[in-house]
Amino acid sequence: MSTAMADATTPLIANCWYVAAWSHEVSREMLSRSLLGRQLVLYRRIDGTAVALADRCPHRAMPLSMGCLEGDEVRCGYHGLRFDAEGLCTDAPPVPKPPRAMRVASFPLVEKGPLLWIWPGDPALADPAAVPECGWLEDAAFTYASGSMTIAANYVALQENLLDLTHFTFLHPGNLGTPEYASAPYRVTSDSRTVTVVRTVPECGLPAMYEATGLGSKRISRCTTSQFLSPALHAAHVLLTDLAPDPGERATYTVHITHFVTPCDQDNTHYFFTAARDYALGDEKATETMRRNTLKAFVEDKVALEAIADLQKREGDLSEMSMQSDQAGVTMRRILLAMADAEAVARFTPDGDRPGGA
Amino acid sequence: MSTAMADATTPLIANCWYVAAWSHEVSREMLSRSLLGRQLVLYRRIDGTAVALADRCPHRAMPLSMGCLEGDEVRCGYHGLRFDAEGLCTDAPPVPKPPRAMRVASFPLVEKGPLLWIWPGDPALADPAAVPECGWLEDAAFTYASGSMTIAANYVALQENLLDLTHFTFLHPGNLGTPEYASAPYRVTSDSRTVTVVRTVPECGLPAMYEATGLGSKRISRCTTSQFLSPALHAAHVLLTDLAPDPGERATYTVHITHFVTPCDQDNTHYFFTAARDYALGDEKATETMRRNTLKAFVEDKVALEAIADLQKREGDLSEMSMQSDQAGVTMRRILLAMADAEAVARFTPDGDRPGGA
Amino acid sequence: MSTAMADATTPLIANCWYVAAWSHEVSREMLSRSLLGRQLVLYRRIDGTAVALADRCPHRAMPLSMGCLEGDEVRCGYHGLRFDAEGLCTDAPPVPKPPRAMRVASFPLVEKGPLLWIWPGDPALADPAAVPECGWLEDAAFTYASGSMTIAANYVALQENLLDLTHFTFLHPGNLGTPEYASAPYRVTSDSRTVTVVRTVPECGLPAMYEATGLGSKRISRCTTSQFLSPALHAAHVLLTDLAPDPGERATYTVHITHFVTPCDQDNTHYFFTAARDYALGDEKATETMRRNTLKAFVEDKVALEAIADLQKREGDLSEMSMQSDQAGVTMRRILLAMADAEAVARFTPDGDRPGGA
Repeated sequence: MSTAMADATTPLIANCWYVAAWSHEVSREMLSRSLLGRQLVLYRRIDGTAVALADRCPHRAMPLSMGCLEGDEVRCGYHGLRFDAEGLCTDAPPVPKPPRAMRVASFPLVEKGPLLWIWPGDPALADPAAVPECGWLEDAAFTYASGSMTIAANYVALQENLLDLTHFTFLHPGNLGTPEYASAPYRVTSDSRTVTVVRTVPECGLPAMYEATGLGSKRISRCTTSQFLSPALHAAHVLLTDLAPDPGERATYTVHITHFVTPCDQDNTHYFFTAARDYALGDEKATETMRRNTLKAFVEDKVALEAIADLQKREGDLSEMSMQSDQAGVTMRRILLAMADAEAVARFTPDGDRPGGA
Repeated sequence: MSTAMADATTPLIANCWYVAAWSHEVSREMLSRSLLGRQLVLYRRIDGTAVALADRCPHRAMPLSMGCLEGDEVRCGYHGLRFDAEGLCTDAPPVPKPPRAMRVASFPLVEKGPLLWIWPGDPALADPAAVPECGWLEDAAFTYASGSMTIAANYVALQENLLDLTHFTFLHPGNLGTPEYASAPYRVTSDSRTVTVVRTVPECGLPAMYEATGLGSKRISRCTTSQFLSPALHAAHVLLTDLAPDPGERATYTVHITHFVTPCDQDNTHYFFTAARDYALGDEKATETMRRNTLKAFVEDKVALEAIADLQKREGDLSEMSMQSDQAGVTMRRILLAMADAEAVARFTPDGDRPGGA
Repeated sequence: MSTAMADATTPLIANCWYVAAWSHEVSREMLSRSLLGRQLVLYRRIDGTAVALADRCPHRAMPLSMGCLEGDEVRCGYHGLRFDAEGLCTDAPPVPKPPRAMRVASFPLVEKGPLLWIWPGDPALADPAAVPECGWLEDAAFTYASGSMTIAANYVALQENLLDLTHFTFLHPGNLGTPEYASAPYRVTSDSRTVTVVRTVPECGLPAMYEATGLGSKRISRCTTSQFLSPALHAAHVLLTDLAPDPGERATYTVHITHFVTPCDQDNTHYFFTAARDYALGDEKATETMRRNTLKAFVEDKVALEAIADLQKREGDLSEMSMQSDQAGVTMRRILLAMADAEAVARFTPDGDRPGGA
């Protein structure tokens, strides 16, 4: 296997379901958002279903989001061309009949729980059944905190950061990172598309992050499964086990921290995240505390990733040096590079004879 | 005829008379201004005639505008080299005698009414007789409003916007754009250098813009002639005719809206405009209203053109799709491309044998 | 000899001692500074000796200055890698043993008087004995004023400015530049590495700059020796001679104005300067006046150099035209080009057989 791996210069991977927005962000007011290097406009039809179009009139490149909605359609604010939710031009006032070729790219969208997923690539390959399941965001047995931000760095660095638990002690001291956790053994497994890291602390105290379990000073075991599932998704599952539960009391507590990674462009990344728990369900203060704790850590990541991106750009130097502990990240970055390469091959190969491996 | 046409990447056309400034902007204080990709300095001689020099000392590239005027000459603020209004070095204090090759480019200027015209190209081709006539700016039978702004977009997009009347209803609703106007028939004619669009509304109400005619609620006809005359000039002539004039009253009212387009560089454009009328001559309030109305519309154009330029730059994509209604603009853009190509040929051809067609 | 000379595009010269910082700027708090196109971090060991490392963890390019000092070593704030002052990785918490190749570049430093000198090039060539002597900064017989700034222009333009005395009258009127000085004869001499300009005014009044000599309205002679000594250093020595000293009084007064030039990168330059005198030694007001006067002149230089750099960049044009009076500067710029070329040759030649001339 080649040692080459994806970095900030690797072409973005379009054939993938990405989170485009929180559901609540998209309404009858058009939202312009940069996704995978293109400017898109998001809005809802009158029946509430969401639409994503290229935010660019094909006529003279006016951002459609500067026009207005007319029913389910968008009217351009420059010459009045109107496009339906599939991107077809349904009215072109300056001419008797809209030219057939006058079309806007329309993107497959799937709304699932609080998230709106988009397929920025070849629409023929978009399979709604492949939209990731995040059941804990739609299950009454869970309560979740959430947040989002934009990071001025390429998404590969964020994906590597998420798979890397060795930085907790240093970048997130006194929050996620405890010394026991840093030195705990872990196991990395992978297949051709995913990478999984399992880290187990057989016995430790309760991290502050999880105080709403009410476990207080009890001894617990802590098992974290971190998974790179796609260019768009990293899911972490935390299992806390009370090593001496009171009779009749529950012994296990679950937290799902889900990271949704969507490149704006080569140098910027939308970052959405949720932290769902199966305890203290109605406890709004616990939700707020968890939101604040995760946000604090993720802002620390943002600061580091942006400082790195800035330094790499100023020095014009992307060099890195990996260690054994980077195995998971390096494996993931090789997968990303292979996916990007496969897309590049597919792009230059006629439909009829795509190479089997791509 | 090729379908290729000028766009934001087409080289600027230097052999043309452009408006460099309002006359009142140029004085005994040096004015530094970016014109056609070069920084120039404008000032007046003691006798009042205007001068345009490259704003760059040929010695060590110091902006001459940071020096000072000495009579009709400019003294550089770095080493004291002095240049006369023709760009000749008349004093070089560090050496006994100014080197003959030490020259600053000087640009032909013609002052005509309120405008200062410049020829940024080959001085040998500059014919003062070719400076456009805008008689209405110097004729007591007209009163004009005026304004100017800089637009962060290439000048081709502005020239196309000016020739395009189909956007009025959508970009300028309730101002220039009335539904009758949008649907009115028009005729496009062109020759190898100019494009003319004539649009006639046989009967309509008075647009708010022209209320100072005093025609109130009377029915009128409205005929607009829009002309692309050069890379630097678009002139629109509006003729309003009272369809039932009172006995002994005038039947026609004329407005000349003149647009002066001067590229700062490939991505920015100086835009000067005047709106002259042959009625309500002494009415300062009418002038102010007309100034405000035209400015409002032109700021709407600026916002659109800058949004388009920004989107094209961010997406790295200049693609467009033209319709039948773009005929005038497309014809004009082919002319601009032909002019740019001819200049490129002339630039690389020895003086003696310029190809006849260039 | 070729007429080619260094300009803003010539590669920076790394094999040279440059001033990295004032000694007092470097402490137990890490200082991140851009030097010769790289970001470096400067700090002091517990014993007070200064350290310069690349401000970039070799692992994932995190700026080391965002981490913390542990004794004499730097701990990276991302994954906790620790580097000693030689750049060796002494701890890598995520792995049992730091990889041997995990190293940070460490730069030779020499502290001399108030200055910290760095060798950004090949460490094997760094000879501490070659650090320039500026005895007057460490000699009780002198008092000096000092200052520093960053100039948004390439260092070559600053070095030429320093060697050029013909601009004084125009850029620094009423300060350094007196008419007598401008017209005084001068002599330029050079060898393969240095350029010297000696300018003598046999008789003149006292420039305001030197009023603390107490010479008042007496007639003096003024001799200035300006020396380009390296890409990093320009030293000017001023000798004022009282043409009619009172019996028993001193006849000569010396001022050393020393300019330390350190490229941040191709387009920006750190500029440090000192003005040392051998009179009015305890006079703090005289020091402050001299500081203010030199600073005023050097800010005038900064404004000019930045205006030139900005204009050259906007016009995409580096053209210049030299005169006989630029002889010293042109000679110096040929030396800089030769040094840059020699470094480029050395960089692409195996150690064993570097060409003798390089």
